[in-house]
Amino acid sequence: MTYFNIDEIHKLNHLYKINLINSCAGFKSANLIATKSNENNTNVAIFSSVIHLGSAPPLLGFILRPTSVPRNTYENIMETGYYTINHVHEKIIKDAHHTSAKYDSSISEFDVTNLETIYKNNFFAPFVQDCPIQIAMKFVEEYDIKSNNTKLVIGEIQELYIKDKLLKDDGFIDLSEGKIATINGLNGYAIPTLKERFEYQRPIR
Amino acid sequence: MTYFNIDEIHKLNHLYKINLINSCAGFKSANLIATKSNENNTNVAIFSSVIHLGSAPPLLGFILRPTSVPRNTYENIMETGYYTINHVHEKIIKDAHHTSAKYDSSISEFDVTNLETIYKNNFFAPFVQDCPIQIAMKFVEEYDIKSNNTKLVIGEIQELYIKDKLLKDDGFIDLSEGKIATINGLNGYAIPTLKERFEYQRPIR
Repeated sequence: MTYFNIDEIHKLNHLYKINLINSCAGFKSANLIATKSNENNTNVAIFSSVIHLGSAPPLLGFILRPTSVPRNTYENIMETGYYTINHVHEKIIKDAHHTSAKYDSSISEFDVTNLETIYKNNFFAPFVQDCPIQIAMKFVEEYDIKSNNTKLVIGEIQELYIKDKLLKDDGFIDLSEGKIATINGLNGYAIPTLKERFEYQRPIR
Repeated sequence: MTYFNIDEIHKLNHLYKINLINSCAGFKSANLIATKSNENNTNVAIFSSVIHLGSAPPLLGFILRPTSVPRNTYENIMETGYYTINHVHEKIIKDAHHTSAKYDSSISEFDVTNLETIYKNNFFAPFVQDCPIQIAMKFVEEYDIKSNNTKLVIGEIQELYIKDKLLKDDGFIDLSEGKIATINGLNGYAIPTLKERFEYQRPIR
């Protein structure tokens, strides 16, 4: 196996290091977070850090780097309290990834890509059209992570839209049936095929 | 599309709700966190919440539910300061998933599964043998998430072992080449195949 200790990691060149450390935690979720400012400027940016925090209440979190691209996302969420989470699927991975380019806040990524907004049920923030899962989120709280100046942003699910065929009788959403993407590192994409679902595990004997 | 609002979500039966909300954020990482108490009791538990927090310093986080199985994991980390993160791969998904069963802290999941410990380079906590990525972690800090009583546990990478063929010239780790798993919901597993890596994105014009 190839081995790196912490001193060797610190000394790696920047690009090598961010590729390595961004890949090493495993596969990541692939979501577009869409927002709108009070002046009606829309914004959409790709995130690979959306995570499940709990089901009751239904909470999702994501990590925001202070110096990174999706700064407009954060400003709009703080200003309005609302955002949407939309799943990246096979047909839009190229446009979704392009939202990582550093556009000025006056430019909407919806205008420079084929991604389209859609408004539903009077929710303030736009959804991304045709995504197999679309989630309306309300900001709840944030934590400043001292050790590296990132933020954990937490929101509550307000509304959940799921393409019918993905939703199974027991509430399981089959992400594979929606050809939903997963992210490897900074820029690798896969469309996984579900292999197996296990039963609830009890101790042996 | 199937639609749920927050009131409908609150009223769902427990199992349906945890399947639904655990699936709705997208694909998740699949890792075994291994620890050892000061009395040499080992513990290993599956986690689907390990996330990348930053590369300089190299930090990973994971979410812990206070009432959930991997409580021993947390106690050992707090007691000793060390743990390992080991990637779940195709050959061990069944045993890895079985670590979610509620064993008493006196029983090591290494004893009731085919998972084996391996100690390397005098690191205190055991690694899981044959995992294509093995990471030695040192506890850094934790955050109590007020909105649902979970914890975000943050650690720094001390040592990183990667199966040689997965590591590319630019530091990218090809998780697919290691047949590394991703988790869908509470109990769905996939072994993704890398589809595409994109270039660094710059604004158009």
